[in-house]
Amino acid sequence: MPGKLRVATIGAVGHIGYVLDGMQQDIGSVLVAAARTEPNERLEPVLNSDVARRDQPKVYDDYRRMLDEARPDIACVCMRYFRNAEGCTEAAQRGIHVICEKPIATELEDLYRLRDVVRKAGVRLTAMFGMRYEPHVLAAKKAVADGVIGEPLLAFGQKSYKFGTRPDWYKDRKTFGGTIPWVAIHAIDYVRFVTGLEYATVAAMHANKAHPDYPGLEDCGALLLGLSNGGQAVISFDYLRPECANTHGDDRLRVAGSQGIVEARLADDFCEVITQRQAHRELRHEGKLNLFLDVAAELRGQGKCLIGPEESFRVTEVALKAREAADTGRIIVL
Amino acid sequence: MPGKLRVATIGAVGHIGYVLDGMQQDIGSVLVAAARTEPNERLEPVLNSDVARRDQPKVYDDYRRMLDEARPDIACVCMRYFRNAEGCTEAAQRGIHVICEKPIATELEDLYRLRDVVRKAGVRLTAMFGMRYEPHVLAAKKAVADGVIGEPLLAFGQKSYKFGTRPDWYKDRKTFGGTIPWVAIHAIDYVRFVTGLEYATVAAMHANKAHPDYPGLEDCGALLLGLSNGGQAVISFDYLRPECANTHGDDRLRVAGSQGIVEARLADDFCEVITQRQAHRELRHEGKLNLFLDVAAELRGQGKCLIGPEESFRVTEVALKAREAADTGRIIVL
Repeated sequence: MPGKLRVATIGAVGHIGYVLDGMQQDIGSVLVAAARTEPNERLEPVLNSDVARRDQPKVYDDYRRMLDEARPDIACVCMRYFRNAEGCTEAAQRGIHVICEKPIATELEDLYRLRDVVRKAGVRLTAMFGMRYEPHVLAAKKAVADGVIGEPLLAFGQKSYKFGTRPDWYKDRKTFGGTIPWVAIHAIDYVRFVTGLEYATVAAMHANKAHPDYPGLEDCGALLLGLSNGGQAVISFDYLRPECANTHGDDRLRVAGSQGIVEARLADDFCEVITQRQAHRELRHEGKLNLFLDVAAELRGQGKCLIGPEESFRVTEVALKAREAADTGRIIVL
Repeated sequence: MPGKLRVATIGAVGHIGYVLDGMQQDIGSVLVAAARTEPNERLEPVLNSDVARRDQPKVYDDYRRMLDEARPDIACVCMRYFRNAEGCTEAAQRGIHVICEKPIATELEDLYRLRDVVRKAGVRLTAMFGMRYEPHVLAAKKAVADGVIGEPLLAFGQKSYKFGTRPDWYKDRKTFGGTIPWVAIHAIDYVRFVTGLEYATVAAMHANKAHPDYPGLEDCGALLLGLSNGGQAVISFDYLRPECANTHGDDRLRVAGSQGIVEARLADDFCEVITQRQAHRELRHEGKLNLFLDVAAELRGQGKCLIGPEESFRVTEVALKAREAADTGRIIVL
């Protein structure tokens, strides 16, 4: 299949649907192989997809062998989170581009090693910061970039999830990595994405209070971040949303700037801007992009992916240092 | 006028209307005197009130002389903020109860001295934490106290104001005291009031970014607070609300607990609870109490004031230590 983007999947945890859904819309890509990363790992999310029916990928029990034999252009890494860095490193070392579930690493040491390998190999690694592609986030990003609110100064991000049922490996910090790298990381990313500002410092707190069977999972917590322009960001996160709520998540963003305020509440389908000239104007952003298609377009030389080449490392670094700030009760320079 | 509560006002800055409005509804109180605290201070907010027309208070240029001569039961202190502690101390030393605009002190040293005087004198000092009397705040408080959301674990408070026009003495930290003690203090108070939890630690950040003529006034900032039960609170505050927005303030509260989430957005007239059993139920609290009437009732032996006798000191202490945390970049134990 000359000219087609050859994709292989490593594991089947998390938001692998971003890639499978995108490929389904893209006749220029082909799913050549899928690998288990644990004995008895369920690959159904991959193998039952329309794309797998279309492309009939070869299934492997050893993902390294798959990488060597199938030689994909892109590896999609969706392992238990503590192993993502390992899977990404193996792919990058072989010169293969990577799309990986976040967090791409659960320890800074793994993250920095991976970053070195990716830089040396000259491949593209993209973390699944899927919330960047939400229309309300894109609308807020555009408003700020267009100068509608002046200089962004104070940001608030909220991540609130239903707990639902979680696999056993969420019970252990070592395998799960913690809720800041798994959940709060989205807000860390979209606040940075929308404001266009870098983080300078972080203080954080987190605890497991309502789910004693999952001691490795913090079900409430918050971050206070200094922004590079002297402004501030606060991020709260929780697994306390009642099961009967109308949506799984209650994700929010507010950015107050020198000339206005932009705000999005995704569960309410609410996105609004207030400026000095015009009160309470609804914001809309047409169309929903797909992360895989965005990455694929860049690899084909058609435009720039919304997630910059170094951003996956930086945002993960901020998340892991925020976790450290919460663990140690210290303010950490980023 | 035996049996009547005799009230005198010291200065006329800020929310003195709480007291004047309450007195207007209370034939058992009388405004006996009003004092200027600065040369040429405008006393119109007091003297043009219906209560002043009713009671014809004697006007003084020296508030200490007024306290000595008029011997009121209650002094209402509304001075430039850095002088509130002085006015309160003078009244308390004379055995006079005090209702004071927040912050009751802008320096910890003044606060602790005032606290000692009040404790020794056995008088009641009440800071104007007027937001406690907002129906949505009372509704949220009742829901939490009734156990509707289980154990409160993660709180968010937002204070956002229009800048409008501010007096010159807001330009100087020394006279103004800073935006944490003036604005964020409301959220520090109502988060504590609604959750029923004490604060354990605080990290904070603040800056002046959009109002260079007012260097002593921080127009954006945020607090991260540890709660006594191991939960967390975040509070954001700003003076960035555009002038054309539909309300002066955009005050919010959200408390996520082990069994549900309660939320209020005052500008939207929104107050809602989500529990494990019932999604998205509107909360209502009938009637709006008045702070003065609440204090007066307690002094008459009729019930307990919503603002406990030591709470004004504690909340002010938290605000001043939060300001210190922001100034120094340190996490402070409360």
